[in-house]
Formats: sequence, C-alpha cells, structure tokens
Amino acid sequence: MISEKMQLLAKNGSAIRAMFEESKLMAAKYGKENVYDFSLGNPNTPAPESIRKAAIEILEQTDPVALHGYMSNVGYEDVRDRLAESLNRRFGMDLTRENLIMTVGAAGSLNVALKTILNPGEEVLLQAPYFGEYNNYISSFDGVPVVTPAKLPDFGLNLEAMERLITEKTKAVIINSPNNPTGVIYSETEIRALADLLRRKEAAFGHAIYLISDEPYREIVFGDHTVPYLPRYYENTFVGYSYSKSLSLPGERIGYLVVNPAMEDAAAVIGAAGVANRILGFVNAPSLFQKVIGHCVDEVGDMSLYIRNKEVLYKELTAMGYEMREPEGAFYMFPKALEADDKAFCAAAKRHRILIVPGSTFAGPGYFRLAFCVSEATVDHSLEGFAKLAKEYGK
Amino acid sequence: MISEKMQLLAKNGSAIRAMFEESKLMAAKYGKENVYDFSLGNPNTPAPESIRKAAIEILEQTDPVALHGYMSNVGYEDVRDRLAESLNRRFGMDLTRENLIMTVGAAGSLNVALKTILNPGEEVLLQAPYFGEYNNYISSFDGVPVVTPAKLPDFGLNLEAMERLITEKTKAVIINSPNNPTGVIYSETEIRALADLLRRKEAAFGHAIYLISDEPYREIVFGDHTVPYLPRYYENTFVGYSYSKSLSLPGERIGYLVVNPAMEDAAAVIGAAGVANRILGFVNAPSLFQKVIGHCVDEVGDMSLYIRNKEVLYKELTAMGYEMREPEGAFYMFPKALEADDKAFCAAAKRHRILIVPGSTFAGPGYFRLAFCVSEATVDHSLEGFAKLAKEYGK
Repeated sequence: MISEKMQLLAKNGSAIRAMFEESKLMAAKYGKENVYDFSLGNPNTPAPESIRKAAIEILEQTDPVALHGYMSNVGYEDVRDRLAESLNRRFGMDLTRENLIMTVGAAGSLNVALKTILNPGEEVLLQAPYFGEYNNYISSFDGVPVVTPAKLPDFGLNLEAMERLITEKTKAVIINSPNNPTGVIYSETEIRALADLLRRKEAAFGHAIYLISDEPYREIVFGDHTVPYLPRYYENTFVGYSYSKSLSLPGERIGYLVVNPAMEDAAAVIGAAGVANRILGFVNAPSLFQKVIGHCVDEVGDMSLYIRNKEVLYKELTAMGYEMREPEGAFYMFPKALEADDKAFCAAAKRHRILIVPGSTFAGPGYFRLAFCVSEATVDHSLEGFAKLAKEYGK
Repeated sequence: MISEKMQLLAKNGSAIRAMFEESKLMAAKYGKENVYDFSLGNPNTPAPESIRKAAIEILEQTDPVALHGYMSNVGYEDVRDRLAESLNRRFGMDLTRENLIMTVGAAGSLNVALKTILNPGEEVLLQAPYFGEYNNYISSFDGVPVVTPAKLPDFGLNLEAMERLITEKTKAVIINSPNNPTGVIYSETEIRALADLLRRKEAAFGHAIYLISDEPYREIVFGDHTVPYLPRYYENTFVGYSYSKSLSLPGERIGYLVVNPAMEDAAAVIGAAGVANRILGFVNAPSLFQKVIGHCVDEVGDMSLYIRNKEVLYKELTAMGYEMREPEGAFYMFPKALEADDKAFCAAAKRHRILIVPGSTFAGPGYFRLAFCVSEATVDHSLEGFAKLAKEYGK
C-alpha cells in the first residue's frame, strides 16, 4: 500500500497529468497546430549550437573512465573553478570552487539547501503566488510552508506581511525572481529592504534566517531590467541555479548551488550540503553535462523568441481588456481572470483550444498563468481565441 | 545553523572524505602507482565504444528542443518500450512501459520506491553486511532500518533471523545481489524461501511487504552463477537498476525502477512513483543518457578486468592465509580481517600503502571490503604488501 503522504500527492499529480493527457487528446482531435498550449514551462528555443559542439568534442576527446566516472559529490573541481570565475566577473563576488556544488538542476539545489538547514517543524516563507513544488520540497524535510499574501496589484515583495509572519520558527525564505508565475523582477530597493528585515529578525530571534534564491529565470530579462545578485545584499543566502531555461536543457538536470562565503558557518554548511547531495540520492550532477557547462560557462541561449512573444501577447491581450503587470522577466504572464473563478475561466478558455493554468494552482486565485515559451505560431494563432474569450466576458 | 540530522551525517561524511583525501595525499607522497586503493566502487573499465557512438549520433541527429526538453517524469516512452522488450526477452517477464520509470541511477530508484511506500515509523529490513547508504535513504522518509544479522560464515540469506525480525511494522526488505560488500549471489533456492517467508508474513499481518531489489551489479557475474530475477518469484517486488557498473556510467546518473506488474495496486504504485520522482527533485532521469540507453539496451561493458582481478586476488590472498567466500559477482570481496579489530587491521594495511575499508562500515565487523574494480597493475603490485601484512599476523 502506498504511503499516506503519497496517496494525497498522487491524487494532485493525477490532476496535472490529466491536463497533460487532455492536451494530447485535443491535439489528436483538432490538430496540434490548432491547440494553443500555454500550460507548461518547457522551453521552445533550442539549446545553443555551442552546447552540441562542446558535448561532442568532450565525448570524442575524453577518456570515458574519467568522463563518466564518479567525481566528488560536489562536482568536478575544474568546472566549479570556471563557474566561480564567471560569477565573480559577472556579479562582483569572491567565490571559489568551495562555495559551489553542481546539482541535478535547481530542484536538486533547493532540496540540498533545505535538507541542509531544516529541522522538523521549522517554517519556510513563500510569497504567493508561487511555484507549487516548493510545498513538496519543504514537506520532504518536515518543514512547514508559510504563505505570505501577494502584494496587489503588482506582486512586489510584501514586506509588511513578512514582518508579521516571520516567527521564532522561521528558518528560511524562498525568493524566485524573475518570478514564476508573475514575471516580476524584485528591484534592488525591495531586496535591500528584505535583507534589512531579515537581519533585524535574525537579531531578534538569535538565529540565522536563510534566503534561498531560486534563479532558473535569471537570464530571461526584458528591456532594461536587472536582477540583483542576492548574496551581495544578504549574508545567509543560497542561490539555486539551473541551466534548464537559460540553455534550454531542462531534461538534462544540470544546475548548481551557491553557498554565500559570507554565510554563518559557510564551511560547515557546504560540507553538509555535499553530503546532502549524496544521501538524497542525487549523488552528483550528471558528469557529461557538468563538463559541457564548464566549456560554455558564459553562454546563454537565444532569448529573442521569449522577448517577441511577450511583446505580442502583452500588447494584444491588454488591448483586448486583459489586465496584468507587464512581465519583466521569465516566460510567464499572470493576468487577471475575467471572472472571479479562475478555474471556470480556464475551462472557458479551453473551448477556444487555449490551455492556461488557473492562478489558484500557484496560490494566486482570480488570475491565470500563461507560459509563453512556445512557438511564434502558437502565440499568433491563439489571439483570435483570446479575443473571442474576452468578448464573451463583455470586454 | 545546519539541521540536527545533518550535523551528525556531515560528521560521518567527513570521515569518508578524510579517507579520500588521505588517498590523494598518499598518492602525492609515494606516487599514484605505489598506492593500492581498493576503497571505492568506481569502475575502472571504460564504457563501451557503442555508448560514445550512440551519444554522438543522438546529439548530431536530434532536434535539441526534443532531446534536452522535459519529457514525462517517468521517462521517454520509446526508451521504456525498448527496455521492457529487452527485460521480457531476458527474464521471461511481461512488462510494458507502464511498469518502468527511468531514474537518476539506482540511488534514485531506491529513493523513489521508499518514498512511494514508507510511512513514518515503518521498518525496512537489511541483512548485514550491507551498503551503508540504505540507512540514509530509509531515514529520509522517517522509516526505521532493522538489521538482520549476517548468516556466517558464508553470508547467505539468514531467513531464521528475518522470520524473527519481521513484525507488523515491516514494510519492506532490501536485497542486494550480487552483493556489496560480500560478492555473494543469492541462489534460486534462497530466493524461493524468502518469497515464501514474505508471503506468509503478508498473510499473517494483512498487508503488503515489499521486496526492493537493488541490482547495480546484476551483469557482473563470475563462472556459471546466475542471478534470479526477483519479480518472477515474488509479486510485491521493485527492482532498482543502474548502468553505473554494467556500462561504467556512474557519473551520468542513469538507471530505472521496475514495478512488478503482479504487485498489489501496481497501477497506483507506478502513478505515485512517477510523482515521487518529480517531487524528490529528480524530476526525470537525464534525457540524453535515457536516449543513449534506448540505443544500447542490450549492451554490457567488458567485464573481463573484474573477472581477471577476482581470479588473481582470490587465488593469491587465500594462498597467503586470508579467508573469504569466493566472490560470485559484483567487484568486491569481503575477507576476514587478520585481527578482531577490523579498523586496526585496515590501518595496518595502510602501512603497506593498501587502502581497504573496515567491515564495520557495512555492519560487518571483523572483515574488510576490497573493491577490485581497479587496474591490473594495482592488483598485481599490491600482492607483495598483502603478503607482508599476512606475515605480520603470523600467517
């Protein structure tokens, strides 16, 4: 018999799977090109050609025993050296290989960080709306997710709510900027204020409160926006990074965790995090793709598709009467649903063969998430449906 | 501050790391060729050339969006189809893709299986000596490892002890054959008797008791020995497989989990296991190497190095007076230490620049583990040291 926890989780899992299956059924019925699936964050821009070249070159030139063998659980030293050098150059940091652990994507990074610090019953703050998987990660270590309400209408950091909800039990705050599902980038002013708040609370409660920055969308930024590098603003910061979006490698499960050298007990934390990487069953990040990253450390994929899609959708949808904060980064927008019940609204969209996700899935009821990491054609051909949908709601 | 659990685990982690560091220091001092490191299970035989070829071909011919993108959390359908076909052919099974989940190595498989079934406080039986990491995996889900004593002198299955130690709380038994650290393969007779015992206990306690077969060493078999395929003998069986040893790909983190179609609630279990793969942060097995496995589904690396090393070491060491059961598979032997204190014995070995692991690390005190997945030269040049060591103990 399945464990009690998993019975519940599998039920929710089936709901998402049902959506995935429905998309396939609709594609079979109407033709794939007539279904506008904005439900998944699966990049539609190819990995840069340099990735293919690097992978083939490494495969051709490296002794397979060395290439595919075990390395230290924290990853290859040369790869971590190159990565540290790149991050130091880009963000004015002073990292060494000792501050970096290669991980099985950002999901791996977050699990390693949480395993390292969480005792049962300790609380982790999440600002709504947020990526629902955080709940599962926190629960895996018997932590308690505490949701701080969204700051409306623009989804900035709600520091008043955090001030109220940080307690003696608070061990960490997860921040995701550029944000899934809103596309918001937190400004330097917001980050400074957050750092001040956390330092004040650390002093009041007499223990560290960790900031965990989940950054898979760091390289997807529109216009002149910049994404502050959190370790520069707050000592007790972990950064979980993934190449899933910046290099379109989500299936390869490659990323890294930064432990800020300024963190309290940094050496002990990184030691424990390396052990966590092993005992969680990751063991190490996939070896070939560690080496590929080492070769392509400053590479970013072509993000022009996302920029273009954002421009078209933001302009057209707002003209139709949809309301939203213009996305500043990532490949999501989070407009208001045209009726209070976001699930009913997404069901109505489905009749126009548009697949979008109810905001309540992200603890953001009354909104919907639109993932625009799709082809130009999907965007362009969906507009008629979005317009008809708006008209049905009297826009 | 690091979590209480991790403080303890990191301390043990550092002990292993210390051994690893010492090996590097010794290599620097005496020259790498003069240090005989039998401490790690890191394959020394290269991945077959077909792996390199398949990887390059796939990289050259596949659209990167499809190759590196997300697939279903359980893995690519075509890969699971080919794998099911191969397992059916080899083991007379009747598997479909629905019974298979591609995983981040066997470590991934075991964690997925345990997450799927374990409620807090439920017990998992391990027969000593065993791979110590099982303790961590079980503890991750608040399960309780219950160690059944070794059957001496030959490390066969100790069914009398299991009979006594299986309780109402027993949820699973982990079996590892060919075994790390003993090199023993459990015979068909032993497996039948185990299946009978478990069925009897299931009936007595009125709930499923799962057999989890950890099989990274299945393809490394000496002489005429065969490894029974456990799902053929017992309904409620999971098989965790890894290509780390059979194809020398430990760094790539690729393996699979079989959910026996005859298992109670098999469909629900596989659904939950797919969700577990996602929420544990694995998300999916690395995509390129899934495809490589699909191309090389019947491939096995050249195991002749291990066969040769086993022959030499078994013959020479027994002639020197070391006592052991002759390994039947895997690349480990587990001889008696020449004094009661296995840690002191391994320290004595170190003076001959021989690195071996105390049996107590595997809950097998009084023995030592020798991993012979090393070069021929390491084996041959170590013999003088082993002989001197034996003489020191009056052999």
